[in-house]
Amino acid sequence: MKIEPKLPSGFKDYLPEEMIPRQKMLDTIRVVFESFGFVPLETPAVEREEILTGGDPEFNKQIFRIASNSEEKDLSGLALRFDLTVPLARVVAANSSALGRPFKRYQIGKVFRGESAQMGRYKEFTQCDADIVGSDSLMADAEVIALMYSAFKALGIDKFKIRIGDRKILSKLIFENISEEMGNDGITNVMREIDKIDKLGWERVASNLEAIGLTKDQATKIGALIMKPTDSLEMGELVRSIEELGVPRENFKVDLSIARGLTYYTGVVFETTLTDMPEIGSVCSGGRYDGLVGKFSSEKVPAVGASIGVDRLFAALDKLGKLEKKNKIADVLILNFENNEKAVSLVQRTARNLREAGIKTEIYLGKENTFKGQLAYAVRNEYPVVIIIGKKEYEAGKIQIKNMIDRSQKEIVLEELAQEVKNIINN
Amino acid sequence: MKIEPKLPSGFKDYLPEEMIPRQKMLDTIRVVFESFGFVPLETPAVEREEILTGGDPEFNKQIFRIASNSEEKDLSGLALRFDLTVPLARVVAANSSALGRPFKRYQIGKVFRGESAQMGRYKEFTQCDADIVGSDSLMADAEVIALMYSAFKALGIDKFKIRIGDRKILSKLIFENISEEMGNDGITNVMREIDKIDKLGWERVASNLEAIGLTKDQATKIGALIMKPTDSLEMGELVRSIEELGVPRENFKVDLSIARGLTYYTGVVFETTLTDMPEIGSVCSGGRYDGLVGKFSSEKVPAVGASIGVDRLFAALDKLGKLEKKNKIADVLILNFENNEKAVSLVQRTARNLREAGIKTEIYLGKENTFKGQLAYAVRNEYPVVIIIGKKEYEAGKIQIKNMIDRSQKEIVLEELAQEVKNIINN
Repeated sequence: MKIEPKLPSGFKDYLPEEMIPRQKMLDTIRVVFESFGFVPLETPAVEREEILTGGDPEFNKQIFRIASNSEEKDLSGLALRFDLTVPLARVVAANSSALGRPFKRYQIGKVFRGESAQMGRYKEFTQCDADIVGSDSLMADAEVIALMYSAFKALGIDKFKIRIGDRKILSKLIFENISEEMGNDGITNVMREIDKIDKLGWERVASNLEAIGLTKDQATKIGALIMKPTDSLEMGELVRSIEELGVPRENFKVDLSIARGLTYYTGVVFETTLTDMPEIGSVCSGGRYDGLVGKFSSEKVPAVGASIGVDRLFAALDKLGKLEKKNKIADVLILNFENNEKAVSLVQRTARNLREAGIKTEIYLGKENTFKGQLAYAVRNEYPVVIIIGKKEYEAGKIQIKNMIDRSQKEIVLEELAQEVKNIINN
Repeated sequence: MKIEPKLPSGFKDYLPEEMIPRQKMLDTIRVVFESFGFVPLETPAVEREEILTGGDPEFNKQIFRIASNSEEKDLSGLALRFDLTVPLARVVAANSSALGRPFKRYQIGKVFRGESAQMGRYKEFTQCDADIVGSDSLMADAEVIALMYSAFKALGIDKFKIRIGDRKILSKLIFENISEEMGNDGITNVMREIDKIDKLGWERVASNLEAIGLTKDQATKIGALIMKPTDSLEMGELVRSIEELGVPRENFKVDLSIARGLTYYTGVVFETTLTDMPEIGSVCSGGRYDGLVGKFSSEKVPAVGASIGVDRLFAALDKLGKLEKKNKIADVLILNFENNEKAVSLVQRTARNLREAGIKTEIYLGKENTFKGQLAYAVRNEYPVVIIIGKKEYEAGKIQIKNMIDRSQKEIVLEELAQEVKNIINN
């Protein structure tokens, strides 16, 4: 009885063809994060559920819990993290003096949510987060936004817009335009509806607002204020800062309708959409959350950060045809068709020599046992350089090197091979 | 009510001080894996339990299951992977034609086991795996062993020994020295005991062998054969190959007592111990497993691979004092003590300029608001370069650069700054 080799629905393998460009993407993001001085942190995927939800039912529905197994009775109350921000808050609360302030960390890791599947949305996905903990300066907010801009540019993405709002300004604006008896919950509820403008359009949001208790006039007034196509003067300092940090006007916009769903945001919030693929939603978002660490600590710790949803971004770039897909990573394939000890020795010595010179090198280990069959494999898989070691070669201790780009071929000794390969692949 | 910011037992955070060298370690391993032509693969941490255990109770006890949540009814039968080999076998079975043969992949990822905690052992840990699927050649076994040797060398580790056995030879040797009626299970049971020689010593293993039905003579004979301090002639071809691939005698040893616990191994098996810390056990192990893909496919697919337990290795290197620990990654700290728009502008423009030149640069965003306080922070955190922009500087549009290594300082214009910083940090 064979077991069917299938994945659970909502989960995804990245085969090499996708994983090679994806890995490159993650590496690029890391370089940019480090260029801003962010340091890496790694926390487990498994946390205590109490930490993750903080008792907030908002998170309860989507969380993956760990069930106990026969050997281990100690697994109750554990769950998989759904973001990297809550674990960061735990780490900061638990290691306050060791980490110092401000603490600028990045983390790239898997998170898990019981969401229904959509294009580029999976139940397990990777987030790339960067956060500044311990600074309440608007300069920190600006750093985070400039960081995300720089990451997108480094990824070769030009057409995107970071839309920046501010929950403090937004909640004041709502407060001044709803009835007093709706209270704080009223403000939160109105924000939650406003956050849906992108998805539902203003008309439907306006009628939702009436449904939760606003008058038609109140809804209209709020709509007019948040959709005013102007840079809010109140955000002038932030705007100046992000411009000084190199973010051009065409890539950001003040937009008070950005509210963000998560309740932990307390100030500046932002979302990023790809101009050519707005339907995929935000591919990078974040904001200020000055209260989150306080759930775990009596210390008041301001924080601001952002997260790139790389899987969704990757799916979008794939759909836009912007990924360079390939299956192989090696620059050199050494053919291996002479089935005798002397030939095999030279093949292996050649591989060792090239690898020690830092050249990505494979020995052919497949089922084809002829020169012709192995060369066809090399062509099919687009190796730029092929090494041929036949009877003539191993007896003379020489090597044939074939440049697969211009199809030239020459005989060479092992000592000169690495340099010759470098000349070809760096050309 | 504050929530206590604690981790579940058996799980670990890597704070930046550890994560910076750990990240470097993972990057080094990746470079070596790619130099051998292995390509990256990523699979989810969550798999169908049936895939993971294949109905084998050996795995059942340690597995972490996913419990369903209120929203998602579709989570039954899911669990967290306990290694990266079984998911690889699933991927190969499911994507046979897309991947081609041989398929050489590496994967770096988290795995989860309900093990009891020991030094360097956690319930969630990272494995770095490399496997060659689709080749039954001994050259593939040799490649994997040479790969692991090269990875250790690249990590700066010299004192280690790869001990290589062969389950085929071992099982033949056992078969010839036990009573026929003990059958295949008998061979497996004897292997399992032999695998414990390192932990228990031969005397106790010998008495265990008698307890499972061997005579004293049989046990003694088997012991003598497997502990013979000689390179088994039967393994001559493999030994020649790994030497050609650059692995010196001092770093490997044929040792027929290496049996490996996991039942899926079918041929060559190996383990790696650190000479200065044998008590930590194997930090890298692997072998040939020609039957595993067959659990998911009717195709017969030979495979060989290995896995580095980086967390255990990291803990060992830490204990041996071989890690360079630091808290910060940036080369430049820009002080930020003039609280006015013009100064802030120049601070931000300077940061932008350096980052665009690829220099890791931080703007000071902490609570110290004096030059002296911020400079003390820079000293404490060992930034090699400090930029000072005071009143005199921002009014003249100039910048003070301080070399923190030789304590020299000079005035400079922004256009020349990046080169000057590079001169200092590359010195």
